[in-house]
Amino acid sequence: MVSEVIEDMLKRMQSHPGVIGTVIINKEGQVIKSTLDNTTSLQYATMAMRVCDSSLGALRDIDPTNDLTFLRLRTKKHEIMIAPDKEFVMVTIRASTDGA
Amino acid sequence: MVSEVIEDMLKRMQSHPGVIGTVIINKEGQVIKSTLDNTTSLQYATMAMRVCDSSLGALRDIDPTNDLTFLRLRTKKHEIMIAPDKEFVMVTIRASTDGA
Repeated sequence: MVSEVIEDMLKRMQSHPGVIGTVIINKEGQVIKSTLDNTTSLQYATMAMRVCDSSLGALRDIDPTNDLTFLRLRTKKHEIMIAPDKEFVMVTIRASTDGA
Repeated sequence: MVSEVIEDMLKRMQSHPGVIGTVIINKEGQVIKSTLDNTTSLQYATMAMRVCDSSLGALRDIDPTNDLTFLRLRTKKHEIMIAPDKEFVMVTIRASTDGA
């Protein structure tokens, strides 16, 4: 059931224009499913966990009852979207766009 | 001249719907200008620097030539947008929206 949900998420994400890859990781930072190669998936999993942890920490320093629901990083080379959920974190890498 | 640019940025940001406040900080994390009270401004300045630093670090671990251009954190309570520039970092806090 869970794997069906994940497969469905992956398929939906990959159909979006400009999407380079999607990595789904569990709360321990392990890659569960990915459309990218192992090395790249692991790199993005590590990156996402680091960004999520520090953002959540910084956020809760201001308000301990707050929670992170979505994170979007626009970089010079591409856009990285991180969606933390109860059990999984979905990381999507998309080709950079010039719009706001 | 610089302060005019900053004043203009602040005014433009504050006119956006849902904007709660805007804080402009320099590269050292000091608050230069803000529409919020001192304590809150400092809290968001510290938060933004922490999130920027860790995101940039994590990003450059994957690709040392990459750079962070914009960061958007959606939280349970509000949305925080961080725009790092050459000299300044602009942090905008906006009321949370339910859309994607």
